[in-house]
Order: sequence, then structure tokens, then C-alpha cells
Amino acid sequence: MTPDSLRQDASQILQAALKAADPAWAVKQALRLQGGALTLDGRSLDLARFDRIVAVGAGKAGAPMAQALEEVLGDRLAGGLVVVKDGHGGATRKIRVIEASHPVPDERGVAAGQEIAAFLQANAGPRTLVICLLSGGGSALLVSPAPGLSLADKQETTRLLLACGADIAEINAIRKHLSQLKGGGLARLAGESQVASLIVSDVVGDRLDTIASGPTVPDQTTWADCREILTRHGVWQQTPEPVRRRIQEGLDGKLPDTPKPGQAQLAKVMNLIVAGNRQALDHAAATAGQLGYAPLILSSSIEGETCDIARMHAAMAREVRESGHPLPPPCCLISGGETTVTLNASPGKGGRNQEFALACALDLAGLAGVLALSAGTDGTDGPTDAAGAQADGDTVSRAKELGLEPRRFLAGHDAYNFFEPLGDLLITGPTRTNVMDIRLMLIGQ
Amino acid sequence: MTPDSLRQDASQILQAALKAADPAWAVKQALRLQGGALTLDGRSLDLARFDRIVAVGAGKAGAPMAQALEEVLGDRLAGGLVVVKDGHGGATRKIRVIEASHPVPDERGVAAGQEIAAFLQANAGPRTLVICLLSGGGSALLVSPAPGLSLADKQETTRLLLACGADIAEINAIRKHLSQLKGGGLARLAGESQVASLIVSDVVGDRLDTIASGPTVPDQTTWADCREILTRHGVWQQTPEPVRRRIQEGLDGKLPDTPKPGQAQLAKVMNLIVAGNRQALDHAAATAGQLGYAPLILSSSIEGETCDIARMHAAMAREVRESGHPLPPPCCLISGGETTVTLNASPGKGGRNQEFALACALDLAGLAGVLALSAGTDGTDGPTDAAGAQADGDTVSRAKELGLEPRRFLAGHDAYNFFEPLGDLLITGPTRTNVMDIRLMLIGQ
Repeated sequence: MTPDSLRQDASQILQAALKAADPAWAVKQALRLQGGALTLDGRSLDLARFDRIVAVGAGKAGAPMAQALEEVLGDRLAGGLVVVKDGHGGATRKIRVIEASHPVPDERGVAAGQEIAAFLQANAGPRTLVICLLSGGGSALLVSPAPGLSLADKQETTRLLLACGADIAEINAIRKHLSQLKGGGLARLAGESQVASLIVSDVVGDRLDTIASGPTVPDQTTWADCREILTRHGVWQQTPEPVRRRIQEGLDGKLPDTPKPGQAQLAKVMNLIVAGNRQALDHAAATAGQLGYAPLILSSSIEGETCDIARMHAAMAREVRESGHPLPPPCCLISGGETTVTLNASPGKGGRNQEFALACALDLAGLAGVLALSAGTDGTDGPTDAAGAQADGDTVSRAKELGLEPRRFLAGHDAYNFFEPLGDLLITGPTRTNVMDIRLMLIGQ
Repeated sequence: MTPDSLRQDASQILQAALKAADPAWAVKQALRLQGGALTLDGRSLDLARFDRIVAVGAGKAGAPMAQALEEVLGDRLAGGLVVVKDGHGGATRKIRVIEASHPVPDERGVAAGQEIAAFLQANAGPRTLVICLLSGGGSALLVSPAPGLSLADKQETTRLLLACGADIAEINAIRKHLSQLKGGGLARLAGESQVASLIVSDVVGDRLDTIASGPTVPDQTTWADCREILTRHGVWQQTPEPVRRRIQEGLDGKLPDTPKPGQAQLAKVMNLIVAGNRQALDHAAATAGQLGYAPLILSSSIEGETCDIARMHAAMAREVRESGHPLPPPCCLISGGETTVTLNASPGKGGRNQEFALACALDLAGLAGVLALSAGTDGTDGPTDAAGAQADGDTVSRAKELGLEPRRFLAGHDAYNFFEPLGDLLITGPTRTNVMDIRLMLIGQ
């Protein structure tokens, strides 16, 4: 197996993963109209039950998801609206696409959130099917302060929590209690409607209550938790008065709590992840198998410092060569998730995927028939135009011939400038989706 | 599967790994006397070919290896001598066990090395079988400056190289050229004898030329490399005069180079790793299988920062639970090697294995039916009396009940004081062997 054939095979496997991450493709795979029924991940919804099908949603992938939904449902779709990030709009026929600010929410997002709330209330009913399209960024885009609160009140509360060291779970508990739509709020506004959420997950572990702040998912946290969190961190007194008043009203029983697991109000909600890291890895594994490499999925939720995670991947690839563990060659080790890079004071140009490939290059140097590849499924890796990079046992020697010292580029977090002259950057262009990263260790016969 | 049964099973699997690392057991497994032949890892040596069988060697495991060899060969063994670390002696009948200083060599080691060289020269011949017993620490114990050099000359040269930033491969190249025994020297002194080296490997990747500095293994480096390394680092002029003279004589063709791969002089040498990390993992895997867990060996050569390596192991264990990858439960992920811990200014009490378990505890918190275990096969982990520790999904909540905050202990590198009150330290006592670390992720049904 030549280095070139490994590269070609790795490229095909990566393409399969990216296809699975494509929001439009994923919606069309998950949702099919057959006769008078809509099948959703194998479950069937008899369309005779519904007078009206509408769509709402938020997230960077909102436009292609809306387009795909229109394609599947055709005239059966009555209308709808989704909020997307500036520049992420697209041509649709029935679903209105509204652009708003991300990652810092703005008043356009607030207006869109209020419009979605009003739209749901106007259309809700036992003979309505609400299809909810959620993807990464939805939390900032689907911003809908509860009645009596302003965007500024919510933002000031978040700022206070960040400053006092509250963790993300604590911040989300409060946010969900200050929003009309988050933490199951959207599903509650849909009332008696049947709700089907189609979700593109960019969150490690695919936690439904985290993606876009879980607008159709029950919330475990309570008004009492909100009060306790703000008090424990010593910021209750500084919290904006309208926020404190709302929490107090909740504690006094004057406002309902967020929908809780097992409660009847979310009984008519189906949540389905149509695209996520796990799906991308599954597709990569299937393609690797077709190409003759026994696939092994390691994990879809790998976090940690990039260099060390790379070293463990390289150690496994070497073990395949030396002892046939964890499985004999030809094989393909596949992993996903999102690692971190701890930068020094003046980092060069790169990203976590390129750094992964560079660290692998060092640990695989001299080893024949092994290729390491890492790429961000969004098509961008750090502040570069590359999605990632690839490396094999010859990378270090090829680099040294060009006068490039790999350890210097690794220490300087400058992997882009290492791989560019070698022609080993992976350039896909922005894919307008994100299901985190994919890494391949391809070991030939 | 209860937490207790996981703990019992993990303990059995660990015991199997430790047994495979036991030098005496490993020698007796590898070497068997059957009729008039000695079988050595499946190869047979007809003892009628030999008038004399002798043993030499060096390393911390020298005494139990010598005892095992005496047990296997009985009266067929003529005699021999091995050098061991102070306090690592043991009762033998025919092989003399000499104690010397480790890790800093001393004149007792020099005297022992000279004695081994003289013993080999006195016994060498076509009808001699030399069994060489090598284990970790052999490099410092088997110190035998070449004629004309003193121990001080060698130590000063090493000091210069360390100070100028030479890497370990460069330092070893020089060392092998200044020693009578290293870099294939011992095998050369055995002349026409048949040499069989039985090796306990404590080196990541089991590189034969690295373990005990490869006394029976060809050396790739040359006199020219020695001169080039000392010159490039700018220390040639400061190098002790006898060392420079020796290298110059080598360059002038007045001294032979170390034996090279493929040369006839090492044609009668067999090198066999009888115990190493890979063997320990294999035994662990077999025992896991017998207990009903599908075993998966990830790699025997995992290095890198402990916390990040732990996070990847935990991510794989979670994936098993959530998606059945890389294999469905019940299963046992097994890995080896030796990770590092980057310490802060005032670390607490712990070691890399205990830190691995603590990092896993955080990432596994709340997950049922998963146990993480990490242990040093030498029975000691860092400057503690524990070999390692174990953790499961309840560890964090049990700790918090005792008022122990896991993140604080992890940040303070104080894992010993975290696990001790929980009763989750692994205490084996020193095992007097070392094949690096073993880690288990046990995932129940």
C-alpha cells in the first residue's frame, strides 16, 4: 500500500464523514415522506392526524435544514421561520430565514425569538405538527428574554456569573429560567402540537439539554437552584432587579418552572439527532470497511490537550504494526470530539487538527504504511483556511529536506506553515456545518 | 455487575499482568529443558553441542532471573555472575550475584564488569553456551570502561553531553563506544560461543539496543558519529583526553567499531524478551477474557501527559457504554507504557498511576459499571508506597461525602491523599521487576 493510496483512501473516508455531517443530507436521510406517513428515524407519523405542518428553529445550519425540509414535505409544509447567523442565509420557499448576530446576541435575535414564540402560539393545536430545526449556535441565536426582562438584563446576569467563576451548567440553569424558549420553553409554547426536533449536534457527548440550550428538552434545574447558585457565588444582590424579581416569583409559585423530565407537557415531543460526531464516525467506519480497512471507532467524545491525544493515537497505530493490537492491519482507527491547544505567548498559524497531525508525524517518523489525518468538520481549523492536515512516516524526513524542523513548528504552534510547503494541508472550504472533529489513523497491509 | 465485582475482577486481571512481569516466572516460561534439548521461545538448542553453559548478566531483576535459570538447568549450569542493584541480591547456588550502585555507577560496578569480561574470555569457545540475563538498570550496573578509560572519564563525558542538550540517542552512541560490554560488546567478548539473551524490558517500545545499552545487540552508530556529535555540540575540546584519543584511534582504524547489524560476529546471538509490557498486557487480556470481558489491547507504548491520556481512556469507556464502540460491553480496554506528570512548584503526594485514576474518576463520575485502574508493575508509583489506584463512577460522590474535592487534589498532584481515605489505593509492595505501567478500563454488562 503506497503512501499515495493511503492518502486517497483517507480522503474518501473523510468525505464520507463530511457527508454525514451535511445538514441537508442528514435531514433528508432522517425524514422521509412515504405514502401518507412521515417516517422519522424509523418511527412513523400518520399525516392524516395533522391539519398543519410548520417549522421553526435556530442555528448556523438553519438554512440548509430548512431547504431540505421543504424538499421532503413540498406542499404539505404550511410555513415557518428559522434564525441563522449573519451570512448563513439561503433561498427558501416557505420557511422564512432570519439572520441575527452570533456569538453575541443582538436585538434582531430578540425580535426573531419573539416572532417564533408568537408564531407557535398562533399555530399550536392538537392537529399541528411543529418541526423544530436546531443546530450549533442556536443558543445565541434563539434569544428570547422572558416577559419583563430585557436582553441587557440577561447579558448582565451572564457576565456576573462568568466573573464569579460559575460553571457552564450553572450558567445554563439560570439562562433557561430567564428565557421563553430555552430549557423546553419552545416545546411548551407549542402546546398540544406534536413536536419533532431534528438536531445537528456540535456538542461533545450530544447532550440534548445543551445543544441550542435544549428548547424542546426537559430541564432538570429549578427556581430554587437559580436562587442557590446566585447566592452561593455571592452575586444575588448585584443581579439585575427584574431577574431577581422573576426568580422570586418562580419561588413563590407565581410562575411555572421549566418543564421537567416525565411531565405530561413534553409528552408529544420527539428529539432526534440527525447529524453529530457519532454519525460522522459511523459513516467514516462504513467507508473504511468498503475500502478494505477493518474500522475501529475509539470514541466520539475525546477532549484533552491535542499533543498528548495525538501521542496516544500514534502509539496505537504503532502497536497495530508491531503486534496486531488493537486489531490487525489493514485497519482504520477512528475518533472524534474536540481537543484543545494550550497556546504560548506568540503562537504561529495553526489549529488543533493541524497540530494533531504534526504531533503524529513525529511519533510515526520512519514507520511505513501508516497515515494520520485530523480535520474539523466545519472545514476550518483555528484561524486558518485549512480544515486540518495529514501526516505519515515520511513526513518528518520530507520536512527536513525542506529545512523544516518539526519540533520547532510544534513548539511554536505553527503547524500550518509546516504542512503548507509539504502539500499536506486539507482544504475543504467552510462546510457550513459542525459536528466537531474527525481523526483517522489508517494502517495499510 | 456491582462495583465490588468489577473491583475483584480488575484485581485478578492486574495480578495476571504482574505475574507475567515476574522475572523468575518469565524465565521459566521462556526456557525449558526437555530431554537433551533446551527450548527457548519455541526454538530448540541441542545441548550435546555444548561442553559448558555459563550465565552472565546485569539488572535489577538479576537475582530472581539467576535463581530461575539455576532451577531450569540444574547441574548443567557451570557457573556465572550477574550484577544487581544494592539490596537486590538473592540466594543462588552457582551464579554469583554481585551488588553495585544504581543509578549512579560506582567502582564495584566497574570491578564486576571487568570480572564479567574476564569470565567471558576465559570460557568463550564454539562449545560454550552463554546465557545472558538482562533487565532494567543494567546500563548503570554493567559499567565497563574500555581499556585506557576510567569511570570518571565516562562520567565526565556524559555530564558534558547532558549539559549541552544532547539527546539520549546521542549519549548512548558515545557510551557504547567507550564501553567494553555495551553496544554488542558483551556478545563480541563471547567470541565463538552461542549466546542467548533473556531480557526483561522496562523500555517503551522494547528497543533491544536500548535495554541495558544492548550488550548483545548490534549498534547502528559509528566512531564518525561520536566525533560528529561531540563536535556539533561544541564539547570536543572539553572532552577528557583519553576519550578523545580513543575516538581518534577508532577513526584511524586502530580500534574496531561496535558490532554492526548483519555482521558475522553477532550471528550466534539470540535475543529474547521474556517479560515486557506487551507480555503483561497479553496476560491481562487472557485473564479478562476468562472472566467474561472481551479484551482490547490499545497499545503497550503510551506516553504523554497523564491527565490527557486518562481523559482519552475515559472517553473510550463512555463510548462503550453509549454506543458499543470500540466494542460492546462487557469488555476490558487494556493499555501500557509510561506517562509523565508535569508537576507544579509544590506537588502533593502521588504518582502517574494514581493521577491517572483520579483524572478518570472525574470523567467517569455518575457512570455505572465502569472501573478504571492504573498501576506500576514495579509496585511503586512516584514517591509513595502504592502501586497505583482505582476509580469508578461513584468515586467522586464518595469523595465529596468525605469532604474531598477531586479537582483540588488533581491540580495539586495529591492523588495519594485523595484515594487513601477512600480505600482505593492499590498496595502490592515492591515487585522487584519493572515492565512499566498497566491500565485497565473495565466495563461491565
